[in-house]
Amino acid sequence: MSAIVEPTCQIYEGWEEFYHGDTDDKKDCFLAEGKLFDIIFAQQFNRPFLDYICNLANQIRRMAKTKMGSQKLRSLLAHKRAMLYFVQPSTRTFLSFQNACHILGLKVSETRETSTSSEVKGESQEDTIRTFASYVNLIIVRHPEAGFAEKTAWVLNQTDRPVPVINGGSGPDQHPTQAMLDIYTLERSFKHIGGLDGKKIAMVGDLKRGRTVRSLSYLMKNYRDVTLYFVSPQIFRMKDDIKAFLNKHGIKFYESDDFRSIMPEADAIYMTRIQQEYADDPSGEIDAYPDFHFKKEHLGIIKPHCTIMHPLPRRYEIDVAVDKDPRAAYWRQERNGMWLRAALIAYIFGVEKEIGTEFL
Amino acid sequence: MSAIVEPTCQIYEGWEEFYHGDTDDKKDCFLAEGKLFDIIFAQQFNRPFLDYICNLANQIRRMAKTKMGSQKLRSLLAHKRAMLYFVQPSTRTFLSFQNACHILGLKVSETRETSTSSEVKGESQEDTIRTFASYVNLIIVRHPEAGFAEKTAWVLNQTDRPVPVINGGSGPDQHPTQAMLDIYTLERSFKHIGGLDGKKIAMVGDLKRGRTVRSLSYLMKNYRDVTLYFVSPQIFRMKDDIKAFLNKHGIKFYESDDFRSIMPEADAIYMTRIQQEYADDPSGEIDAYPDFHFKKEHLGIIKPHCTIMHPLPRRYEIDVAVDKDPRAAYWRQERNGMWLRAALIAYIFGVEKEIGTEFL
Amino acid sequence: MSAIVEPTCQIYEGWEEFYHGDTDDKKDCFLAEGKLFDIIFAQQFNRPFLDYICNLANQIRRMAKTKMGSQKLRSLLAHKRAMLYFVQPSTRTFLSFQNACHILGLKVSETRETSTSSEVKGESQEDTIRTFASYVNLIIVRHPEAGFAEKTAWVLNQTDRPVPVINGGSGPDQHPTQAMLDIYTLERSFKHIGGLDGKKIAMVGDLKRGRTVRSLSYLMKNYRDVTLYFVSPQIFRMKDDIKAFLNKHGIKFYESDDFRSIMPEADAIYMTRIQQEYADDPSGEIDAYPDFHFKKEHLGIIKPHCTIMHPLPRRYEIDVAVDKDPRAAYWRQERNGMWLRAALIAYIFGVEKEIGTEFL
Repeated sequence: MSAIVEPTCQIYEGWEEFYHGDTDDKKDCFLAEGKLFDIIFAQQFNRPFLDYICNLANQIRRMAKTKMGSQKLRSLLAHKRAMLYFVQPSTRTFLSFQNACHILGLKVSETRETSTSSEVKGESQEDTIRTFASYVNLIIVRHPEAGFAEKTAWVLNQTDRPVPVINGGSGPDQHPTQAMLDIYTLERSFKHIGGLDGKKIAMVGDLKRGRTVRSLSYLMKNYRDVTLYFVSPQIFRMKDDIKAFLNKHGIKFYESDDFRSIMPEADAIYMTRIQQEYADDPSGEIDAYPDFHFKKEHLGIIKPHCTIMHPLPRRYEIDVAVDKDPRAAYWRQERNGMWLRAALIAYIFGVEKEIGTEFL
Repeated sequence: MSAIVEPTCQIYEGWEEFYHGDTDDKKDCFLAEGKLFDIIFAQQFNRPFLDYICNLANQIRRMAKTKMGSQKLRSLLAHKRAMLYFVQPSTRTFLSFQNACHILGLKVSETRETSTSSEVKGESQEDTIRTFASYVNLIIVRHPEAGFAEKTAWVLNQTDRPVPVINGGSGPDQHPTQAMLDIYTLERSFKHIGGLDGKKIAMVGDLKRGRTVRSLSYLMKNYRDVTLYFVSPQIFRMKDDIKAFLNKHGIKFYESDDFRSIMPEADAIYMTRIQQEYADDPSGEIDAYPDFHFKKEHLGIIKPHCTIMHPLPRRYEIDVAVDKDPRAAYWRQERNGMWLRAALIAYIFGVEKEIGTEFL
Repeated sequence: MSAIVEPTCQIYEGWEEFYHGDTDDKKDCFLAEGKLFDIIFAQQFNRPFLDYICNLANQIRRMAKTKMGSQKLRSLLAHKRAMLYFVQPSTRTFLSFQNACHILGLKVSETRETSTSSEVKGESQEDTIRTFASYVNLIIVRHPEAGFAEKTAWVLNQTDRPVPVINGGSGPDQHPTQAMLDIYTLERSFKHIGGLDGKKIAMVGDLKRGRTVRSLSYLMKNYRDVTLYFVSPQIFRMKDDIKAFLNKHGIKFYESDDFRSIMPEADAIYMTRIQQEYADDPSGEIDAYPDFHFKKEHLGIIKPHCTIMHPLPRRYEIDVAVDKDPRAAYWRQERNGMWLRAALIAYIFGVEKEIGTEFL
């Protein structure tokens, strides 16, 4: 596998110019041979791709149910090595990627703390990235700095040894594999009622800073007749850039601070917590907004097929008593992430055929 | 594999009530299909089980001697993934479990520090545990909090995705796999002289707080005519609960503070160190009690077949000059732990048949 | 595999006496059955061995290019387990060894911080080392303390369960696998012009404390007609012990503080940075010595085949604009380390035959 950097990418003078370039233009720079090579932002995904990856994830989890199937799976990429470069605390995303690698047989190296790395010797970020690429075939990166994953991919694509990069969360903005697993969970929840097209999704909580709801909103342009309800306190309202995007693509959305009145309407309720890490004012927490919590008594007023989601970890937003209701999808959602990420990695390395499926 | 929660376990109102319930009653709650599903406390083990696991450990180490045998071994559970959740410093237990997993082919994820986990985002212990269970097939847990492993198993057994839990040491009280490997070491040491039945075991040092000697004492009820010598300074004497247990089961024991006079009597001498982690008064260390150290000159007065054990790490309790004596069993004991734990994991996943043995 | 401790090694009274013994005498103590068992210092390597390992590394990287080849490779040592005991920060050496293990199928345990280990319970270094040897088949160690790797090997060779030890960097002095990978890189760079024999190598920067240039200088006695240029500020000149060694073996060397005048002469330029970790006076950094930096404009005055090396991480010693020149070999050098270390491990476990080669 080799990255063929598209001619259009040569026009950028350097990283700073590239970084501030238009996302739609930049997308081509993360392709190789017409396929996605690096997974950096949710805007790279179109409907055929999303459908394909969701289907592939289903195939993989089906195969994994038998010993022979999982034997086959872990032979697919046993000749590849991955690096998990996580410099931001993360349990879920880390474990999810790591176990996705284990399922496909990839050997995993991890760097979780900068204190054990060469950064203490004054090495530049670019050199650290190139060093990882010397040893492994895939880099999965999570970083508190906005644009870090993009930079990683950009740096490597300038070298003669690019390896694919997957963004596991970069700063306050992008977390594309979370958005994909949310889509996957929605599609699975609605599989007997026509899938995600035409559904009404309520997003609740800190919409201003929550990167999961932002990324998910972007992806809605790939689905027909979806309606979004943005339910939040005034100070945590969805930002204008997303609303402009939705308007541009003709996606209906409503804003509300009356959670209870929205509940009976929604096919899915996507709860979020406050991203304390990025809080300007840590005291202004959603804990103080009990009207935006989902409680046990609400189970009686939501639709019988309504699916309740949460990117986790949760704090007080969803009562633990809700967990036992079959509509509580967040634990399944979490596990979906592992299968979805396994599918994504299998796609990147082009071993779909051996899973009995192929991306056209 | 699925856990079938026994009806008797439904009687508990919640974790607190369960935790304070009677151990004998609770044992059934950690079974699935009549087999041990979770390994939480030493009281779960009976003689046939102990004999079986010791035999299985012997089989595994025999198989591991050849390349073909170890190939077979690591194929047994190559389709499974384990989590080592160790929030308490531990070298030996961690490496022992990790390499036991490697021997059987399990892929291992590890969480060793809470600072890299979602706990910093305010997630509850219960949610963290469920998250691990989303990604792996086995959780091995070590925690400074008493009852934590038990809680982990209990929480998961309430969900529709229980995975087996092994207690790798929980608080000051329970460390069941250590007790098993001690039994395994005793049985191997005595294999040419009739096994553990009828033997005299001296336990030396801090018997008050040492969880290994406490767990091992419990297990003695499974053996016939064992005599225990509790050798300690007055302030570190074995607690009354153990002594009551021994009396109830008719196990002979003697207490002494004269180590030297006991030495010639013992078939095994089990040395321990002060558990500084739990010390009320850290200054009152056994280092100040040289009469409870095993020194090179003592080799002349112990029995020719006497086996000298220590859970390690040691400090001054055993002179390093003793190491070269063939009766010094502690390094073998350490390594036994790896084989024993591999056997336990193989049993839990029911792959005994493929090792050429089966538990009746 | 068992270590047969040579009779000559019995003459030492203990570790302290051994440590201060003559290196040439001590070399035999790290052999087993006539082969290198422990890899401790560069003085253990002779020309046939270096040629052999370089050739083996070439074979391994060739095999790794195909899926079938890498399948074969990772089956070679899949029955073995390694420990990476790295108590000193290191990205490159750690990842390089870890991925070398992954290539050959070894399962890897890692201990990177003393705070998670039993050392907090007052265990001796010797006992910690023995503990590792209880669980794994190979120990790779990096430690800030001079002689630590040597001590590890020495301690284990006194026991009845020695496992091979590889020095991944011990204190300020020895880093033998770095020296080997430098040789490997030089030989590959010169493969169309007769190899390393007869070449002129400039070593630049902090020659006084840089362990890589010291180790590499030692190895030059294995090559014919090599000329060394030691290029450094006065205060960082190569120490007398190395110069005495070179004189003894008739290796030509010149000292200079005029980097620019040496550039056109050199077949290879080996740049180094200040080892800040060991700096007596951290303010006296090479950053203040721009005359000893390699800049883009220098590309015009060096030989067309000159190879530019650096052990990395770099800071300002080499302009990043140099990276794109085909003579910039440092990124290849870094990756060579992984293949070289894989070759070394394959050799230690005697699986060369299965790679289609054998050491005579």
